[in-house]
This record gives sequence, C-alpha cells and structure tokens, in this order.
Amino acid sequence: MTVQTLEARYRAGDRRALARAVTLAEAGLPSARPLLRAARERAGRATVLGVTGSPGSGKSTLTDALIAELRARGERVAVLAVDPSSPYSGGAILGDRIRMLRHHADEGVFVRSLASRGALGGLSAQTLPVLALLDGAGFDWVILETVGVGQSEVDIAAVCDHTLLVLTPAGGDGIQAFKAGIMEIADVIAVNKADLPGAERTVRELMAAQGLGWHDEHTWFAPIRRTVASRGEGVDQIIEAVRQHREHLGETGLQGRRERRAEFEVRTLVQERLLQRARAAGADLYARVARGELDTDVAADELLRG
Amino acid sequence: MTVQTLEARYRAGDRRALARAVTLAEAGLPSARPLLRAARERAGRATVLGVTGSPGSGKSTLTDALIAELRARGERVAVLAVDPSSPYSGGAILGDRIRMLRHHADEGVFVRSLASRGALGGLSAQTLPVLALLDGAGFDWVILETVGVGQSEVDIAAVCDHTLLVLTPAGGDGIQAFKAGIMEIADVIAVNKADLPGAERTVRELMAAQGLGWHDEHTWFAPIRRTVASRGEGVDQIIEAVRQHREHLGETGLQGRRERRAEFEVRTLVQERLLQRARAAGADLYARVARGELDTDVAADELLRG
Repeated sequence: MTVQTLEARYRAGDRRALARAVTLAEAGLPSARPLLRAARERAGRATVLGVTGSPGSGKSTLTDALIAELRARGERVAVLAVDPSSPYSGGAILGDRIRMLRHHADEGVFVRSLASRGALGGLSAQTLPVLALLDGAGFDWVILETVGVGQSEVDIAAVCDHTLLVLTPAGGDGIQAFKAGIMEIADVIAVNKADLPGAERTVRELMAAQGLGWHDEHTWFAPIRRTVASRGEGVDQIIEAVRQHREHLGETGLQGRRERRAEFEVRTLVQERLLQRARAAGADLYARVARGELDTDVAADELLRG
Repeated sequence: MTVQTLEARYRAGDRRALARAVTLAEAGLPSARPLLRAARERAGRATVLGVTGSPGSGKSTLTDALIAELRARGERVAVLAVDPSSPYSGGAILGDRIRMLRHHADEGVFVRSLASRGALGGLSAQTLPVLALLDGAGFDWVILETVGVGQSEVDIAAVCDHTLLVLTPAGGDGIQAFKAGIMEIADVIAVNKADLPGAERTVRELMAAQGLGWHDEHTWFAPIRRTVASRGEGVDQIIEAVRQHREHLGETGLQGRRERRAEFEVRTLVQERLLQRARAAGADLYARVARGELDTDVAADELLRG
C-alpha cells in the first residue's frame, strides 16, 4: 500500500489502514506525517477520555464495561492502553487487558496496547501521535487507559478532554487520593467495587475532601459515581457524568484541551530531541557539570544550541 | 553581605550563609552561581538519601528518627523536604513536618522545606541547586524527602545516591508497590509501623516480588527492614542498609549517580527555558498544531531554534 493509498483509506475510516497508520506512528517513521496531518484536520469530534487509578482498582474492567455500554448505544470506540514498561508489573497488567480482546471481532471497536514509557517516566513521545490518529479516525469515543503510577497519571490529565479517576472502597483509597493531590486531576470519579464494605464511607470522604479545596461558583466538582464494573453497574452514570463535564467545558474549553494536547506533544518531541543531542554531546557534558567545571546554565545553553 | 563574603562564609561551613545561599538558589538569582560552583567543587562527600513513600506511610517520622540516630552518632544532617504544590494536600503534609523543627536549635541539623513542583509535575528546577548547596556544605548526610506521588517519586530516584522506599503493613502496600513498578526505584525498603498486624506478611510478599524480577549475580536486592519510626526502632538497620548499598555502588557507581544528578539538573533547566520560549512564541504555536496547520516536528524545530 502506498502512503497515498494509505492516507485515502485512513480518511475513509478503514480499520486496517488505521492499524497500519498506528504502527507507522508508533515507530516514529516520517511516512506517518501526512497521516498525522490528515488526522489533525479531522480531530476534535471524538470524546477523548482518560482512565486512571491505582493498580487493582478495576480500570481495565471498567473500560471494558464502558466499551460494552457505548457499543449498545451504537457509538464507535477506540481504546489505547498504555503500560509502564516495568520488568515487574508489565506482564501482570497486560494480563488484565486480555478481557478487552473479546471486542476484537467488533468493527466498531479498536483496541491497541502500547507497552511503552517516555524518557521522563510519563507517556512516551509515540503515544500522542497514536492518540491523534484515533481521534481523527471517526470514533465517537477514544479512551486512553493507563495504570496510575508516576508521571503517567499527570500526563493523562494533560492530554485528554476528560479524566476518569477509578478508586475503590478498600484501604482508604479516597483519603490517599486526596492526600496525594490526585483528586485535582479528576473530572469524574468512579468508586468502583461499590458492593464492597466501605463504599458509602469512601464517597462521603471524597465529597468532604472536595469541599476543602479552593473553589468559586465556576469550580467543577468531579461527580462521584458508584460502579460495579464487573457487572456493568453504574457505567451509564459514568457516561452521563462525562457528558455533563463536556457541556461544562463548552466549545472554548474543549478547544483549550486540544491545544494543551498539542503543546504536550510538541514538548515531548522537543525533550526527545534534546536527549539525542545530549547523547551525541557525550556523557562528558554532565560529568563536567558534576565536577563543578561547567555551570548548569552554560550546559543548558550548549544543549539548546545543538 | 557581599557575594564574595557570602561565598567565603559558605565555604567555611557557616549555617546562616548556607541559609542565605539556599534562598538565592531557590529564587533562581544569578548571584547564586558562584555559590553553586563552590558547592559542586566540594560536593560528593555527603551521603545523599532520598526518602519516598505514599502519604501516611510515616516518611516524615522516619526522617525525624534518622536525624536523631545520625546526630547521636555525631554526624551532621541536612534535610530538604519537597511537597507537591497542591491546594488540597499542601497544608496537611506540611503539618507532618512540624515535628522536625525540634532539631532547629541543633547546629548539626539543617532543615528546609520547599513547597514547589516543577512544570512537568516532578521536582522543580529550583530543587536541584538547593540540593547541590547542601551537598557541598559539609554535611555527612543530605536527606531529600518527598511525598511519593506522580513524577516526584521517579525524580527522587534520579537525583539521590540511595532511595529509601517507606511502606506500611496496611492495605496491601507491598503488593501495590510491586504492581505499580515502584519497587524498582528502591535501594532500601522500610516496612514502617511494623508493630501493626500484617508486617510479616508484607515483608514476605516483598521478598517474593523481588525474586520475580530479572536478576543476575550483580543485582542489588533492596534490603527490607522493619521499623517503628515513632519509637526509633529499626532506624539503625536502615542506616546500615544504606551503608551496604553505598559499598555496593563503589566509587564508580557513586560517580555515576552524581553525573545522573547533574544531567537531571541541566535537563530540568533546559525544559524551563523551552517553556519560556513557548510562552514568548505565544499560545498560537500550539493552536496551529491543534488545528493541523503545523506539524509537530516543525513546531519542535521552531522551539529549539529559539
């Protein structure tokens, strides 16, 4: 398939062309550029939802239940699942994703898993172009799911229209999220496994915590919804809460989110290039700084000059 | 005090001069440069220990107990406590730090709290120069304590000689750390509040998890030590484990850690400058990318050209 044919097919909403485009973008190949340009011209129609939460909160199960509910409503869904590349956790987390594969035969569902982590611990430079391709491919929803650890949690809020934080009633999850400042990134909160003891208490604690932060009449208080993802319970309310947040953002707010996503993508790219320059300059640059022979300011200037 | 006098006094180990130098570096003032150069020439003598862990694990109490034990041995200790700037969590976490102030009258202890967060969610560009000043000020130990959330956890491991991960027996802390890939950053693990039920089980789970990762005969298995920080129990064993890790690293390993710290500092500085450039270029750059009018590659080039 030539790049021109590929672009035409991608524009026509061909699923195989999309899969191929994603592979090109993931590899960072120049042939992905015209596809990305096409994607961005058509982007902004999908509801881009980030799903994050600690391991074991049931993010993947909830994402799976969201797919099922959205499909029942006739909406097309793309899912991008990002795992931190950890020798410890990699396998275990990918295992949780297997259930999503049951949607594989459904033409209205596209699932892709990226087992990658950026140089700085967050989303890699390859994740964003893939997200752009999905956004521009005509899906109604694009769901970006990542395990809530390290920078990826902060990143996901920076690149999505809406962020869904998944908590559980277990182990003071709500208080932890509050103390760690993670509640700030949430636009919607799911208290999943709400059939377990402590769900009511967790909801009450979260609501109390929301009242503590700075707020005025324009402040968005993330709706807190009880879910039992394994049985699909409460999933419709999550979708409704996301729609409410979309309405709250309005066209101006959504445009702002799209620009923030573009900013994130450009900055990630810049960082990767600087990393390459630093490698080319040799480790010597940093060794000189470490020995006090070179000021950090001067070293930074050297890197920026290239 | 002139900059020359300040530098002379800093070199002489004057505590007030150090406090002043830290303030200058924190503000990012050019007058901090000669002080930072002096610091880096003298750096590398201190044991730079990062302390991280989830909120409520007792990090601050353990840091406080470490100060007490190290002082009893006649060692000089500097502590840099970094809080994420969160409207929610800020106050609560700073409150935990108050107990450390009891060392304020002790000339052999220097405590500074930075309520700052970098543009990318991790350590701010101001944290690293302050760390360098403490390292070069003749302390035997420099402890960098941060709440284990988001990027700061990954960052702390990148800038310290040794990373102490503080866990508790509660709520499957060990399994969470394992699943989230956080165990990888730990050089020493404290199972704090070890008088609570479940401590033995947590230790066993952590040891089992360590066996799962990739390893060969050179792999460092983070020693797992039980502590009850509020009573000072097990703190001597933490210090011993850090010394063991220092021996494991050797002079070459420690030099590598110092270069990694310098690299981190330079890269943070570069990122901040790029951020300023992007602001100067106006938000228009990102808006054009978001509208598909400008390729991300071209935008990245524009930023790098300045």
